[in-house]
Amino acid sequence: MRALLLPKETQTRCAGFSTLAARGVRVLGYDRDAATLDTARKEGVLDVAMSADLHEAAEADIIVLAVPVNVAAAVLTAAAPHLKRARLITDLGSTKRAIVYVADRLGLSDRFVGGHPLTGDHRSGWSASHAGLYDGAAVFLCPTARTSAEALACAHEFWAGLQAHCEEISAEEHDQRLAHASHLPQIIATALALVLNDQNLHTEQLGPGGRAMTRLAGSDPDMWTSIALDNRSAIVKAIVQLERQLAAARAAVADGDPDAVRRFFNAGRAWSDA
Amino acid sequence: MRALLLPKETQTRCAGFSTLAARGVRVLGYDRDAATLDTARKEGVLDVAMSADLHEAAEADIIVLAVPVNVAAAVLTAAAPHLKRARLITDLGSTKRAIVYVADRLGLSDRFVGGHPLTGDHRSGWSASHAGLYDGAAVFLCPTARTSAEALACAHEFWAGLQAHCEEISAEEHDQRLAHASHLPQIIATALALVLNDQNLHTEQLGPGGRAMTRLAGSDPDMWTSIALDNRSAIVKAIVQLERQLAAARAAVADGDPDAVRRFFNAGRAWSDA
Repeated sequence: MRALLLPKETQTRCAGFSTLAARGVRVLGYDRDAATLDTARKEGVLDVAMSADLHEAAEADIIVLAVPVNVAAAVLTAAAPHLKRARLITDLGSTKRAIVYVADRLGLSDRFVGGHPLTGDHRSGWSASHAGLYDGAAVFLCPTARTSAEALACAHEFWAGLQAHCEEISAEEHDQRLAHASHLPQIIATALALVLNDQNLHTEQLGPGGRAMTRLAGSDPDMWTSIALDNRSAIVKAIVQLERQLAAARAAVADGDPDAVRRFFNAGRAWSDA
Repeated sequence: MRALLLPKETQTRCAGFSTLAARGVRVLGYDRDAATLDTARKEGVLDVAMSADLHEAAEADIIVLAVPVNVAAAVLTAAAPHLKRARLITDLGSTKRAIVYVADRLGLSDRFVGGHPLTGDHRSGWSASHAGLYDGAAVFLCPTARTSAEALACAHEFWAGLQAHCEEISAEEHDQRLAHASHLPQIIATALALVLNDQNLHTEQLGPGGRAMTRLAGSDPDMWTSIALDNRSAIVKAIVQLERQLAAARAAVADGDPDAVRRFFNAGRAWSDA
């Protein structure tokens, strides 16, 4: 089997694929940063460093797009003429509706399965990647309306080989869910960092809890700008929901109402214990 | 030297003091939970399990109050008649104005230094404690207006012996700062948990970032109710500041304004890198 990586912009999670190389899969890859491409080849994660026109993609059975969501459509469009052999075309982006729509429009929908591994941390790029990155990770698979059974099976097999656990979900449901489960936490971490900045408080003045709550503020701003704009309406709704919870908590504290304050913390604890 | 622990209510952090026992300090302790007291004695963390009337406190050179902030005043008041020998009276609470005021009112202010180690996580009680808990931890020391140089030196020596780093700060400044650095993060984690609960999303459906952002929701509700009520006005102001940041972020995303969204994430990253 031949797999192909297409991180045409700075990719965030590619080198979990060293596991693929170790399993005897021939990996072809491209990165716009020549140094990254060179390092990947020297470390044995890539067998072939592809050219910028991506023509080597024509040899690949599996295509994995690992680029920020705002450039995914352009990269997939550029690669499309070279994807005739591919049995599976997938991606790793944090939003799924837009890319599934583009795959459909490019006539790739029978072989396309959107993918989103929930892994990693605030760091991105080659230096944040490591073998075993996907071990035990949850991965969302978002088929198109026309994805073939073969392509879907291939996606499951691909991720199973990386020791990840897959969940099938529609692209719409994915983006709704992730607005709450991932995009809102990121926005909160950044908002908290800005409040602390206004108070002239920095990481080293925080305890373990405060540090954990602001670590995501160090995430890549360009990547998150793309995600926030791509999943706009769901994210706005999620922020409004959080603002409601905060306003209620603020009112309970301002009123000095022990029952209301305790109910708030009790409900959080109950969620945590569930 | 004899040190004394007074966790009359469920204490949260007492057993960092096993380090004291290991250094030959005779440790007398009380906990309202007889099983905890018994375990502490059997594990060699306490030399003497005190009686409920705390009369053994009369033997101690150092008094450490390790109780939730809402009962600290009552416990200190009950112990006060037995503290004639003590050179240092301190506590471990997350708010400091109230207890410093009480110490003053009880005529203990020359020997009292408020203490607050920034350590631990969402867990509390005996099972969350371990030797080395304070290694490298930051500890706030809040003297009263009349704390003697000797008592302050004793507090520094005490924490240095536990490998912690002390910062002197007024009780007022402590409570202001912690409202942002600790109390706000706790409230945010709980508020996020409630949003996720409304979406029927639970821990196992989150990625590493979402999990880190909600871990504090599992904190002890009673302890946090006490803290929130004790530091009311500073916490309310901190929540308002966060609400402003969130409203600005929401507006930028709703407008689909890439520059404003990028500025938001860039500012968080800049704080993180500072």
